[in-house]
Amino acid sequence: MPWRTIPVIPFDQRPPAPRWRPPAFAAGSVWLVGAGPGDPGLLTQLAVHALAEADTIVYDALVDGDILSFARMGAKLCFAGKRGGKPSPKQPAITELLIREARDGQRVLRLKGGDPFLFGRGGEEALALAAASIPFRVVPGVTSGIAAPAYAGIPVSHRDVGSAITFVAGHAADGAVPSTLDWGAIATGAPVLVFYMALKHLPEIVAKLIAGGRAADEPVAAIQDATTRRQRVLESTLQAVVADVAAAGIEPPAIIVVGGVVSLRASLNWLGVEPTPEQRVG
Amino acid sequence: MPWRTIPVIPFDQRPPAPRWRPPAFAAGSVWLVGAGPGDPGLLTQLAVHALAEADTIVYDALVDGDILSFARMGAKLCFAGKRGGKPSPKQPAITELLIREARDGQRVLRLKGGDPFLFGRGGEEALALAAASIPFRVVPGVTSGIAAPAYAGIPVSHRDVGSAITFVAGHAADGAVPSTLDWGAIATGAPVLVFYMALKHLPEIVAKLIAGGRAADEPVAAIQDATTRRQRVLESTLQAVVADVAAAGIEPPAIIVVGGVVSLRASLNWLGVEPTPEQRVG
Repeated sequence: MPWRTIPVIPFDQRPPAPRWRPPAFAAGSVWLVGAGPGDPGLLTQLAVHALAEADTIVYDALVDGDILSFARMGAKLCFAGKRGGKPSPKQPAITELLIREARDGQRVLRLKGGDPFLFGRGGEEALALAAASIPFRVVPGVTSGIAAPAYAGIPVSHRDVGSAITFVAGHAADGAVPSTLDWGAIATGAPVLVFYMALKHLPEIVAKLIAGGRAADEPVAAIQDATTRRQRVLESTLQAVVADVAAAGIEPPAIIVVGGVVSLRASLNWLGVEPTPEQRVG
Repeated sequence: MPWRTIPVIPFDQRPPAPRWRPPAFAAGSVWLVGAGPGDPGLLTQLAVHALAEADTIVYDALVDGDILSFARMGAKLCFAGKRGGKPSPKQPAITELLIREARDGQRVLRLKGGDPFLFGRGGEEALALAAASIPFRVVPGVTSGIAAPAYAGIPVSHRDVGSAITFVAGHAADGAVPSTLDWGAIATGAPVLVFYMALKHLPEIVAKLIAGGRAADEPVAAIQDATTRRQRVLESTLQAVVADVAAAGIEPPAIIVVGGVVSLRASLNWLGVEPTPEQRVG
């Protein structure tokens, strides 16, 4: 039996305790940390450590109370996203806050949904910190573009479907559909496309993809509030997704997946048979 | 001062304890878990929980001893990667082991480097488990294609550089360069390209990219053993990277990043000024 060739290591060859301790969170430094897509179980050990240690936490709209419940008592919590229709603070205001708190000797945690460097504008904040000579560390996070499909039962890659995936931000820094992209090449390059922040411009994006040569009947999934207890998944096709999203009332934050891998959900929708997030969040 | 508009929440409005507890790891079930790129700090809370609970752990070559040191005493450790020149067990042997252990009532952890569904063949294993009616859960991980650049001081996206990133597996399931891809579209579609497992076929990949219209002087980074104490980073250009990688002796596992974002490393190489992984791993 071929599996018998897989060796088993006796437990007594392993160390008696985890061989890792978290790095020191130095006073006067800033950690740019990804909080993952929403499920607190997808926080990394470094993110949990940073939450437990930080004096000042500057967080975005996608970071919710379940995540912040890991913050230490006494930490200052600063919300830097949109609230109640009011616009979010401008990026310079956020970097000014990070620098001011760090210069004040605080341990500053900049906490962003997903990963800070994948469509998270973490690069801009890191450049501002470097220019101000503030020590910083980057802690990558689980990105929603992989985790949202996974929680919907969709592998973003599969051997029969493709060996390339393109992640696209649905709007550019100025809020418009990214105009510098070669949409024909995007449409035909990778067999799987994953869009972040794409609901606002979905009709235009779908039109560009079909015009660029993507099949109109290709499977599409829209995943709202991925990995949280509010997660909703809509299955559709490229030509129908705009109407289906509107009819279902899918709202941001949402991830859109385009590609044959979406059809694997019929077999792999594990969340439907496992305890739901609602059941497992105390 | 604009940053004053960011409100601060008093700590006593927050709950006194983390509002999350891990889901039960049921006997007879399999968890397909991403171990992240190597730094144990990038393990998720769910991955640490799974390591602490599992009876049987089937792990890959990219999962090292620092990660396995979180396993509980008494767990069976089964290595399913290449060792000492011998080929890795065939995929059917691995799925047969997972199914057999689950049917034997074990809590089975299938632990993969990075993310299980991004070039990790987790989709194939999940389909085999579903076909055998074995309950399973998927735990996404921090993928090396984002974390390796981040630890090298390279944001995979930046507002001035691009709003699309393509992740490409450097070899297909049969070991060859992926032949079904439209390399011209890959070359011109996204401003940032990230290659996994690309060293073996690097000359052919670089030739396809330049033939497809990618600038020969575009910045490239090669990152070996990302996020571990052995991390090495090489900066080059598309036309020079094959020779530079050979001269520097860069070996797998490595991530290759192509794009203007690589030049941000000059400002953002935080690991060079923070304690190194060697210093912080006990």
